[in-house]
Amino acid sequence: MLVELSTSSLVIAGVIAGIAVLALGVAVVLRRQVLAADEGSPRMQEIAQAIQEGASAYLNRQFRTLAIFVVVVCALLFLLPGDGGIKVGRAVAFVLGAGFSAAIGYLGMWLATRANLRVAASAQHPDGRREGARIAFRTGGVVGMCVVGLGLLGAAGVVLVFRGDAPAVLEGFGFGAALLAMFMRVGGGIFTKAADVGADLVGKVEQGIPEDDPRNAATIADNVGDNVGDCAGMAADLFESYAVTLVASLILGKAVFGEQGMIFPLIVAAIGAIVAVLGVAITRVKGDEDGLTAIYRGFYLSALAGVALAAVAAFVYLPSTFGAIDGVSAELLDHTGDPRVIAAAAVAIGVVLAGVILWLTGYFTGTTSKPTLHVASTSRTGAATVVLSGIGVGFESAVYTAGIIAAAICGVFLLAGGSVWLSLFLVALAGCGLLTTVGVIVAMDTFGPVSDNAQGIAEMSAEVSAEGAQILTDLDAAGNTTKAITKGIAIATAVLAATALFGSYADAVATSLQEITDSGTELAGGIVTSMLSYEIISPVTLVGVILGAATVFLFSGLAIDAVTRAAGAIVFEVRRQFREHPGIMTGEVRPEYGRVVDICTRDSLRELATPGLLAAFAPIAVGFGLGVGPLAGFLGGAIGAGVLMAVFLANAGGTWDNAKKIVEDGRYGGKGSEAHAAVVIGDTVGDPFKDTAGPAINPLIKVMNLVAVLIAPAVVHMSVPADANHVLRIGVASLAAAIAFGAVIASRVRAAKVDAENENRARVAAKAG
Amino acid sequence: MLVELSTSSLVIAGVIAGIAVLALGVAVVLRRQVLAADEGSPRMQEIAQAIQEGASAYLNRQFRTLAIFVVVVCALLFLLPGDGGIKVGRAVAFVLGAGFSAAIGYLGMWLATRANLRVAASAQHPDGRREGARIAFRTGGVVGMCVVGLGLLGAAGVVLVFRGDAPAVLEGFGFGAALLAMFMRVGGGIFTKAADVGADLVGKVEQGIPEDDPRNAATIADNVGDNVGDCAGMAADLFESYAVTLVASLILGKAVFGEQGMIFPLIVAAIGAIVAVLGVAITRVKGDEDGLTAIYRGFYLSALAGVALAAVAAFVYLPSTFGAIDGVSAELLDHTGDPRVIAAAAVAIGVVLAGVILWLTGYFTGTTSKPTLHVASTSRTGAATVVLSGIGVGFESAVYTAGIIAAAICGVFLLAGGSVWLSLFLVALAGCGLLTTVGVIVAMDTFGPVSDNAQGIAEMSAEVSAEGAQILTDLDAAGNTTKAITKGIAIATAVLAATALFGSYADAVATSLQEITDSGTELAGGIVTSMLSYEIISPVTLVGVILGAATVFLFSGLAIDAVTRAAGAIVFEVRRQFREHPGIMTGEVRPEYGRVVDICTRDSLRELATPGLLAAFAPIAVGFGLGVGPLAGFLGGAIGAGVLMAVFLANAGGTWDNAKKIVEDGRYGGKGSEAHAAVVIGDTVGDPFKDTAGPAINPLIKVMNLVAVLIAPAVVHMSVPADANHVLRIGVASLAAAIAFGAVIASRVRAAKVDAENENRARVAAKAG
Repeated sequence: MLVELSTSSLVIAGVIAGIAVLALGVAVVLRRQVLAADEGSPRMQEIAQAIQEGASAYLNRQFRTLAIFVVVVCALLFLLPGDGGIKVGRAVAFVLGAGFSAAIGYLGMWLATRANLRVAASAQHPDGRREGARIAFRTGGVVGMCVVGLGLLGAAGVVLVFRGDAPAVLEGFGFGAALLAMFMRVGGGIFTKAADVGADLVGKVEQGIPEDDPRNAATIADNVGDNVGDCAGMAADLFESYAVTLVASLILGKAVFGEQGMIFPLIVAAIGAIVAVLGVAITRVKGDEDGLTAIYRGFYLSALAGVALAAVAAFVYLPSTFGAIDGVSAELLDHTGDPRVIAAAAVAIGVVLAGVILWLTGYFTGTTSKPTLHVASTSRTGAATVVLSGIGVGFESAVYTAGIIAAAICGVFLLAGGSVWLSLFLVALAGCGLLTTVGVIVAMDTFGPVSDNAQGIAEMSAEVSAEGAQILTDLDAAGNTTKAITKGIAIATAVLAATALFGSYADAVATSLQEITDSGTELAGGIVTSMLSYEIISPVTLVGVILGAATVFLFSGLAIDAVTRAAGAIVFEVRRQFREHPGIMTGEVRPEYGRVVDICTRDSLRELATPGLLAAFAPIAVGFGLGVGPLAGFLGGAIGAGVLMAVFLANAGGTWDNAKKIVEDGRYGGKGSEAHAAVVIGDTVGDPFKDTAGPAINPLIKVMNLVAVLIAPAVVHMSVPADANHVLRIGVASLAAAIAFGAVIASRVRAAKVDAENENRARVAAKAG
Repeated sequence: MLVELSTSSLVIAGVIAGIAVLALGVAVVLRRQVLAADEGSPRMQEIAQAIQEGASAYLNRQFRTLAIFVVVVCALLFLLPGDGGIKVGRAVAFVLGAGFSAAIGYLGMWLATRANLRVAASAQHPDGRREGARIAFRTGGVVGMCVVGLGLLGAAGVVLVFRGDAPAVLEGFGFGAALLAMFMRVGGGIFTKAADVGADLVGKVEQGIPEDDPRNAATIADNVGDNVGDCAGMAADLFESYAVTLVASLILGKAVFGEQGMIFPLIVAAIGAIVAVLGVAITRVKGDEDGLTAIYRGFYLSALAGVALAAVAAFVYLPSTFGAIDGVSAELLDHTGDPRVIAAAAVAIGVVLAGVILWLTGYFTGTTSKPTLHVASTSRTGAATVVLSGIGVGFESAVYTAGIIAAAICGVFLLAGGSVWLSLFLVALAGCGLLTTVGVIVAMDTFGPVSDNAQGIAEMSAEVSAEGAQILTDLDAAGNTTKAITKGIAIATAVLAATALFGSYADAVATSLQEITDSGTELAGGIVTSMLSYEIISPVTLVGVILGAATVFLFSGLAIDAVTRAAGAIVFEVRRQFREHPGIMTGEVRPEYGRVVDICTRDSLRELATPGLLAAFAPIAVGFGLGVGPLAGFLGGAIGAGVLMAVFLANAGGTWDNAKKIVEDGRYGGKGSEAHAAVVIGDTVGDPFKDTAGPAINPLIKVMNLVAVLIAPAVVHMSVPADANHVLRIGVASLAAAIAFGAVIASRVRAAKVDAENENRARVAAKAG
């Protein structure tokens, strides 16, 4: 039954699997190095223990909840039409993808909650600055190598087992990875920001105590959140981007270049694994430079190496004319370009895109750049102008980022000489190029929560010297910046992956239509014909665009609302503890940290279902209800609005965060001034923007595209033939719409209940006070 | 040269022109009634005089600035290809459309600045509640009748003069109206919110003095702003929606139904004029009911009458089969539906849409509905949660509104039996249906600034009794609600108009392609072919979608930034006056109101150019640079992101405004509490959202669509033939991109200068303090 591959392709896939295993081996070595470091004082260990327990408890409960989802979706996958063997393979791959995603998230959290302590302890050492940065970055390195290793292993493994059918099976792998990552992003994002916002509102704003003060009952939850949100969520997200980009590349590569098109993206990804090892190895703080300089150097050098190696690979592996490619698609037979140059250039475009976005995000959110200085300066006229100016910066930066991504796609389109299919494959290759940097990017990102936690532990233990504290503050600041700039890259990977998946969707539709025509079945006319139209001037396709953009807005709104609600519950809890135990404020009584962790856990798990169901079922409703053309419009609208919204939310949040830092460093009156109160409000608004809603949009647009790819054959078979079962089709659409809409309504009802509870709590507090 | 029309069509057009004149006559009568009312005390007259002078001065300067734009654009119109006679007609129509738009804005402002005083004075009368509402609503009635009358007169007049060529000429009329309206929306919006935010920041937040306190140097500017922004801007905007919808209807009607398709939309619009008279006449406050109840009754009754009359018109004017329509497009010849039923149903869908959106907007922003109560309740945890919950409500309401509009378009699509062209015409007809309510809508909207101003005058004059003040407060609250809900309608009209224009664009492209093919010119292949693709799966078309959505984000960001900047300048000025003249605070010295008005005027005129240039030149750059397919994607992306962003901004602002009212009415501690400070910050953030950026998106998406319609033939002729001049094409695109981008850069440079100035002012203040 299997579509066979040539021996040379299988050998290459085997070598690539070997490289993947090597990357995992490097991860094991790095992990040992991290764990070998000094574990600090008993007090520090005690605090770290509390964070570890909270984080493990949350992720374990989260995985138990998500296991149900995975089982249900796995069952639904069998309802889709298709070959039995492929269906089983796809279901297994789905579970594997979800498992890998979860494993990487768990591993990232596990190691980060052990590294935080070691970084805090290292600050006391004579060479604390370098040592701290080394441990933090190595921790990220472990996660980065695992992302690359598992992603590559999964893809190469599926190719080795399923040969030419690998793309169809890999859809399951990508979908599993994306679905899990989306839930982890949403759940972790709600957890971390509910705790952070709640802690800030009561601690900084009401009681005037510093961040991470042990008297604040929400501090442990805040630190747990860094690990389950920023660390586990981001790792799963980037793993998913990696997997999904490979999936789209293989699907499109097979359609355009045949067998070689399937293998070349794997080679590029393997190069990514090699340069990731290089990047992590060469990232060392030299002399007096700060951690950021070393990280940037590591990034740019490894990116450069990636471009060079990919070019070599293209010239070695690909022939010099399109005609010489075995299994090239018919329309490309007389393409006059050199496929080696074109493929290498596409990969290079992806890498350059990563570099430009890194710079651009840094420009808009950095503490020394004009936009952030402007936002900080508006603190003199109060919180409202801080919020407004940050929103302005967010909108503007979103436009430039989207413009750069659009320019990259146009560049690829020119490279392809205007061939739609070739250009879609090249978009996927550019995505692979961008992802050659992913190992270093994950390492950079994990740097953030680890150093943030280290500072928290130092603060709470009150056992770190002033000098050590300064080292940790500097590391934390560098971590804030790396966290902000890697978000830009994550969004860019998401857009390229989604655009490539969009192409895979069109491929799936075309294949299904061909099957129907080949079988001699007549096609229906009338409304059905226009349901097939991808043309954006068709009103229903435009409706698709509007609905796609709307889904992004709704998803963002739900995520932000969830944080506001959960944070409100935490505020009431922390206030209650202060009120009922006056000893907490004087330091005599230890607050009940666990209760806040419990509230965060409960609320985030409760809140993640609605956005998740929306993402999974909205495309089903649109596809079956309106047709394949409107579904394409839906995906296009979601990508367009998604990239802008994601960058807007991330960068507005980033600029507020750093505007706060600027004021805290002494501008406009410094800490405690009215200007400071204003920027704290801005930062609090930005928290769910940049760490909950914004990052969750990345997996969102990919999940929706993957759902579309998966259902495309069913939609075509159920709508296009003259004898199609339209009652069933409308039934499926209505059911999906009811589930998505029902989830939103349920969330509203819950919100009303929470409002009522809060009213009640406020009444109790008023009585008690 | 003219394409002739039948005598019966000309007679109908003549009758319609007569109805338009009658509507203007009604406006004259109503105006006389308003001006006949009591003018109040000399102190009130003095304040009103200051507002009148400020508003006139602003609009006069604005028109002088815009006159340059109008001349330049008029010249550019001659550069487009086409028949000479039509070009002249189009240029004249362009000037006419711009002139009408300006005239309506001016008239609205003129009358509102006279009615405000009379409403304030009427509150002292024995029957003050009813009398005040009557004057305020009649004032709106004048503007509403002028919108309807001038719009209808323009369209009917062009049909009478240019006969079958009217659609091409009307493009100019619509473009003129839309361009002017956009500038008035942006300029007026910046003026009004800079003054409002500036006044609030210093007055309410810093000095703790109430709104409209005469000691605040920004109060007069704030009241001027209500008139030039909310009143003149909105009137011009709705006039433009009216004109543009008619333009699109006539273009598509001609393409689909021939001559009858051109006349039928005019008939529907004439019905709108008749029911507007009815609506204004029957809106009277009965017994003890509040103004809002009376207004809703007037709206729903006149909407119902519109549906009924339109159905009668369809059954009288249209034949019972498509085949019987003279000049029906070939693809519709064997359509089995009844055109009378289909047309009447499309109009009804538009009217129902207006009703549903009215209700929906009221639900999300009203003072007694759950979402707003929720936002108000988050004030207990501070400003950050108020901002976040308002943003959540805004996102969510945007999704429902967009969903309802999408459902309406789908309904129309089903009516059309899936025919793309027929459904586009029906979208235009639904737009005409929606606009049958426009007379009442304008009246409702104008009610807002007039009653707002009346309260301001009463407050400043301190001559109104407590009872009278309560009447004015209630009127103001009703005005706030009408202002908020009419925004929803304005957005819906904009989306339908833009969708219809989108169809006109496709028509223009198809016509030009036909011309080229007919002339025997060969078409180019390769990249050019894909430049023609409307298919959203083509990567460049998707790039168009991304860029279209990006333009909406950039435009919104620019508008919000402009307000923040201008408000900052006002804060420094008001603070300076308080500092240098301590007598202001004690009431002994009168502040220099004029200086603040001058700053607002200068800043808004300076800031309106950038968003304006962006709107006009971005589609030119995309069209000539990437092709007609990506330009379609651009328009689709702009419509999709535009509707969501516009509703989000409007409703988030609306809910914050009313959350503030809830707290001010005594909840959560009432005025002066911490909760109040939090909602004031929310309201201030919402000000530029709901009154600057949000409403300006309506004309934006129409201007961009009209630009696309106008340049479509040039783009096709310059890119598609095998011998096309690609150097010229790329040159035009680059120039347009340079202008749009240059405007943005110029605005950044100016922003940096303003930042530097503010730093300087702050330094001076610090020295002086």
